[in-house]
Amino acid sequence: MERIDQLTSSLKIIQSDDVFSFSVDAVLLANFAHVRPSSHVVDLCAGNGAVGLMMSQKTKGAIEMVEIQERLAHMAKRSVELNHLEQQITVIHDDLNNALNHIAHDSVDNIVCNPPYFGCNEQSRINPNPYLAIARHELTFQLSQLMSISKKLLKTKGHLYLVHRPDRLLDIIYEMEAAQIEPKRIQFVYPKLNKEANIVLVEGIKQGKKSGLTIMPPFIVHQANNDYTEEMKRVLHG
Amino acid sequence: MERIDQLTSSLKIIQSDDVFSFSVDAVLLANFAHVRPSSHVVDLCAGNGAVGLMMSQKTKGAIEMVEIQERLAHMAKRSVELNHLEQQITVIHDDLNNALNHIAHDSVDNIVCNPPYFGCNEQSRINPNPYLAIARHELTFQLSQLMSISKKLLKTKGHLYLVHRPDRLLDIIYEMEAAQIEPKRIQFVYPKLNKEANIVLVEGIKQGKKSGLTIMPPFIVHQANNDYTEEMKRVLHG
Repeated sequence: MERIDQLTSSLKIIQSDDVFSFSVDAVLLANFAHVRPSSHVVDLCAGNGAVGLMMSQKTKGAIEMVEIQERLAHMAKRSVELNHLEQQITVIHDDLNNALNHIAHDSVDNIVCNPPYFGCNEQSRINPNPYLAIARHELTFQLSQLMSISKKLLKTKGHLYLVHRPDRLLDIIYEMEAAQIEPKRIQFVYPKLNKEANIVLVEGIKQGKKSGLTIMPPFIVHQANNDYTEEMKRVLHG
Repeated sequence: MERIDQLTSSLKIIQSDDVFSFSVDAVLLANFAHVRPSSHVVDLCAGNGAVGLMMSQKTKGAIEMVEIQERLAHMAKRSVELNHLEQQITVIHDDLNNALNHIAHDSVDNIVCNPPYFGCNEQSRINPNPYLAIARHELTFQLSQLMSISKKLLKTKGHLYLVHRPDRLLDIIYEMEAAQIEPKRIQFVYPKLNKEANIVLVEGIKQGKKSGLTIMPPFIVHQANNDYTEEMKRVLHG
């Protein structure tokens, strides 16, 4: 069953627990992305559109969301309409490998991507085949497609922003470098001060210089008493 | 001028501000390394021997320190004698590239390495050529030599423990993978909760499986009021 949730204080989003609800990953990614007021932004693996919608609070430029699953793309489109953002945001229901059929190459300032674990060019996210999630080469293949299409869409020195699991960091770095998208800023998100990181945020620059990687201050989600940290409250409530 | 400092509550070390004093990096590396009670351990780029000396508190196995600079090797040797550890620790005054002249290949359980920024096979650390520090390919070359010799010395599934600067992380990962030393655990050290990481600790396993990278809990050195954190006090005072 669908419902309308508050995404930020001024944005609403259509969600459904049966299909997809945005997670803290999306909010952290939107917070992490440095987007200029006129940037042309593309949200790859857009899901129900949470990240792309939040980008509208950072840029007045055009935003395209690319989502392969029809139901999710349709929810995203209706959320765009619900927020009266049809002039700014276009939802593209297609495989990300076909993105160049809709968006000019070398035209994008920023790409944001919150990929599902098992890759964002699978037709179905419901009952994913567990073998897919285990098969590392499949996941790597997904990352490699993502980087390859990002390289084609981005302007030179354009920025890619990605949220993922830290255990994939080596693959992410490998695939970024293979696509000449140089990792520049990495931030690790720790559920608590004494816990291993469970989220990583990565910024890469197309044809960026091969130096100057920065590991940003740690982002801690919960205090020892399980309340959100002040930092997390700021990100969630603006 | 030389002086004798307390390295840990039970170990002393000969130091000199003119030449070399161990830093917090050495203490963090020794803390990070998982060493079994009978492990054969090698300390590459040993400096005045701080890390190798601390390893004697984790293993009863043989420890070799390799240090190219005569003065530092001599200081390390005298510190070994000062602590009556001559039966366990051997100081090898040589280029790390010659380590196989002294230590059998595939014989080492754990390698620890706290390399100076500009590489640990330079003859002089005093007045280092600033061009060396800037030339990234020189630094990469040093890392590649370190990984290459580590691969030869380590047993299969032997562990390498390295402390370095986070801005070199991509090179470290690249050179480790080139030497089939798979990064398995990474810990970032942050001077304070709101600061970028300034130290990275990396554990790699020779011919380890290509999966399962863990980003350890953040290590925070100082509290907001500049006092050491409890975690840092534990590492410093045992």
